[in-house]
Amino acid sequence: MSIGLKNKHIISMRDLDRSDLDLLVETAGAIEEGRIKPDMAGRIAALLFFEPSTRTSFSFDSAMKRMGGETLLMKGTGSTSVQKGESFSDTLRTIERYCDIIVMRHAVEGAARFASEVVGLPVVNAGDGANQHPTQALLDLYSIKKTHGTLEKLKIGLVGDLRFGRTVHSLAQALAPYNPEFYFISPGFLEMPEHIKAELTAGGVKYTELKEVDSVVPELDIMYVTRVQRERFADPEDYERLKGSYIITLDTIKDAKEGMRILHPLPRVDEIAEEVDASPHAYYFEQAENGVYMRQAILSILTGAVK
Amino acid sequence: MSIGLKNKHIISMRDLDRSDLDLLVETAGAIEEGRIKPDMAGRIAALLFFEPSTRTSFSFDSAMKRMGGETLLMKGTGSTSVQKGESFSDTLRTIERYCDIIVMRHAVEGAARFASEVVGLPVVNAGDGANQHPTQALLDLYSIKKTHGTLEKLKIGLVGDLRFGRTVHSLAQALAPYNPEFYFISPGFLEMPEHIKAELTAGGVKYTELKEVDSVVPELDIMYVTRVQRERFADPEDYERLKGSYIITLDTIKDAKEGMRILHPLPRVDEIAEEVDASPHAYYFEQAENGVYMRQAILSILTGAVK
Amino acid sequence: MSIGLKNKHIISMRDLDRSDLDLLVETAGAIEEGRIKPDMAGRIAALLFFEPSTRTSFSFDSAMKRMGGETLLMKGTGSTSVQKGESFSDTLRTIERYCDIIVMRHAVEGAARFASEVVGLPVVNAGDGANQHPTQALLDLYSIKKTHGTLEKLKIGLVGDLRFGRTVHSLAQALAPYNPEFYFISPGFLEMPEHIKAELTAGGVKYTELKEVDSVVPELDIMYVTRVQRERFADPEDYERLKGSYIITLDTIKDAKEGMRILHPLPRVDEIAEEVDASPHAYYFEQAENGVYMRQAILSILTGAVK
Repeated sequence: MSIGLKNKHIISMRDLDRSDLDLLVETAGAIEEGRIKPDMAGRIAALLFFEPSTRTSFSFDSAMKRMGGETLLMKGTGSTSVQKGESFSDTLRTIERYCDIIVMRHAVEGAARFASEVVGLPVVNAGDGANQHPTQALLDLYSIKKTHGTLEKLKIGLVGDLRFGRTVHSLAQALAPYNPEFYFISPGFLEMPEHIKAELTAGGVKYTELKEVDSVVPELDIMYVTRVQRERFADPEDYERLKGSYIITLDTIKDAKEGMRILHPLPRVDEIAEEVDASPHAYYFEQAENGVYMRQAILSILTGAVK
Repeated sequence: MSIGLKNKHIISMRDLDRSDLDLLVETAGAIEEGRIKPDMAGRIAALLFFEPSTRTSFSFDSAMKRMGGETLLMKGTGSTSVQKGESFSDTLRTIERYCDIIVMRHAVEGAARFASEVVGLPVVNAGDGANQHPTQALLDLYSIKKTHGTLEKLKIGLVGDLRFGRTVHSLAQALAPYNPEFYFISPGFLEMPEHIKAELTAGGVKYTELKEVDSVVPELDIMYVTRVQRERFADPEDYERLKGSYIITLDTIKDAKEGMRILHPLPRVDEIAEEVDASPHAYYFEQAENGVYMRQAILSILTGAVK
Repeated sequence: MSIGLKNKHIISMRDLDRSDLDLLVETAGAIEEGRIKPDMAGRIAALLFFEPSTRTSFSFDSAMKRMGGETLLMKGTGSTSVQKGESFSDTLRTIERYCDIIVMRHAVEGAARFASEVVGLPVVNAGDGANQHPTQALLDLYSIKKTHGTLEKLKIGLVGDLRFGRTVHSLAQALAPYNPEFYFISPGFLEMPEHIKAELTAGGVKYTELKEVDSVVPELDIMYVTRVQRERFADPEDYERLKGSYIITLDTIKDAKEGMRILHPLPRVDEIAEEVDASPHAYYFEQAENGVYMRQAILSILTGAVK
């Protein structure tokens, strides 16, 4: 295990090496299939959602409770001692006395890293602003593994807003060790950032950049769709003109390989047409369920309930 | 089992036939008496209270936890993906991945029915606007059974606002198969609606309409009281003049049969004087407790924990 | 057992006699050391925080869940039947039907006492306005016992705002039976109130009043620090001039006895410098953890899970 799991934290995908990723993906699978049944009875996870997110908190809450564990839930900062002038560090050092592991979502970049340095418990980053959301990338990895039986040498299209979407950045980093071939499909000004591309190039990862999705669909094993927000376009007419390239319909995927699967971190707005939901290619709700298994793996490994 | 339980949903009293009602009432009794001990360990109910109700959510929460199960609790919509533009259908199809059964309260009529058509899990309607609140009617039924040993051929007075009170509508429907004799006691403009009366008549159920409660008290086995809201009266003086007829005091019930019991869905404001609470006729707090047993029955039957 | 534990409530320190205190402190210790493992499976505590307090509610929540029990959590009054005009008494008499013990924090003095008179379940006061916060005093007592092996004949300095701090009032009362020697250290207008001093004198308890802390540090076994709020000073310059006497630094405690421990009810603002946290004298975060053990003792004794 590398810095991440060895230190009993999951803060950034950068802390996790390939052996960590393999361990997490395998454990999630073993839990889903019932080969491992972690017993978290008497263990408590504090779910500190300084920034609210029902979906993510439900997923962690469910993961803990499926294993017989319990949670303490904090939403927002309204009723906390923060109002009385307490430092963030004191808040964390008090809460660690009530639980076994801390899961934290915070609007400020680096908040989870700070927490991991202040407390003596494992800390899981459930999203820190625009920075990292590593458990999303991990459940994406597990979803890809489940659908293709391997993570190796897959052709993966990332579609939509690749500039501001932290999800696709983390996922690109997560997949890098597995010899992927990436297709980055976005409007010109929502391209994958240079620093991510440089990192991939340094690691020997191939990628192709495109402005529309149709031509590449027959190549793909995975199509990972994120939302292109209308507000990102300086000229709304650009959006109206372009959106056809970034809204996935049954027509878009008519030439897809049989095993191609569409993933989406959810919530979606209109970037995948509802008609696609009934297609065998649609996988985004299963993906949400996979999040529970991955978070069970994370919580049980970090607390030592699974060795 | 009829459409309701067979389909693993409780959305409307209309879906439940007499065999469903009997099964639910008997199971609630068996749970209260300890003859059935459903084991819900590892099972999770999502309590989605889009419209808040501490009383009802506590009752379901307690029911699940008394059986070793767990809950995920959502209050309001403030922090959900709804704000990000997600469809109600997507919200539900994501949440179903985190739990085993969905309990939903929503301000919009038909919301629970919609949910039951969208998800693959059992759905329990915990109140959809002015429409249905079937678990309240079921706990009322169980309360009546407990107090009289039977549901058959009872004389039941429904008192107060019979026009807008969804509770009394559902209860009248629920009792109809058991040959009741109803007394509908309300001010003229808060009468039981024609469609409910027509339905009862079609089913051969007898009812009498009255404008004041006193004369009928000696006849009653059950007096079911609901609040008459001052705001319903165009002329507040009408309310002041009439309220004596709809506020239950010790004097009102002085000629009641020994076994007569007073029920109320709670919260009450002033429609039952506090002096009545110590009377052996008062049953409304026991009724609240019966709600936990009935909801244990509902949750355990729908999830298959009790066959 | 005296009035408090015999009546299955913890409302005020005044209700608890020395045998109650000894039982609670011993039980907390036995639970922490694993000699007693209370089994609260299937039992439910309603945590009614009419006035929010994340710290205190987390502590009770954790205590209940560490023992396999469950909680129902209410924060504020926004979504309750109170809005619909329900009496406080009815709210409590309904909620008692859903649980086995009620923990209540309320802004109004006497609210917990009222609750204990209205319901048939054990009630724990988790703070009623400026009045009492007995479980804080009990965890303080347990912390002192743990750090010194005894509660007898200790020299205890109470530092800061002794006039408005309910915590120090309750603690002085709690320690009185154990032959303490008190040092009350505060600015003149934030002195320990006369009625507390009269009570101590009547009980034969010695105390000394001082205006600054330095001279007495070498005497102390326990230094209990509370916040001096700037707003209490009519003239802010008084605060700036005086605050050095009430901010604990490493320099303040340089001549302390080896075994001296600093306690603080938390949250702190700046009355203990962060440099003190790494000192062996600092004990305030351990103290917060002790709160979980003490609340486990309280909840399990009052519900009868521990005899």
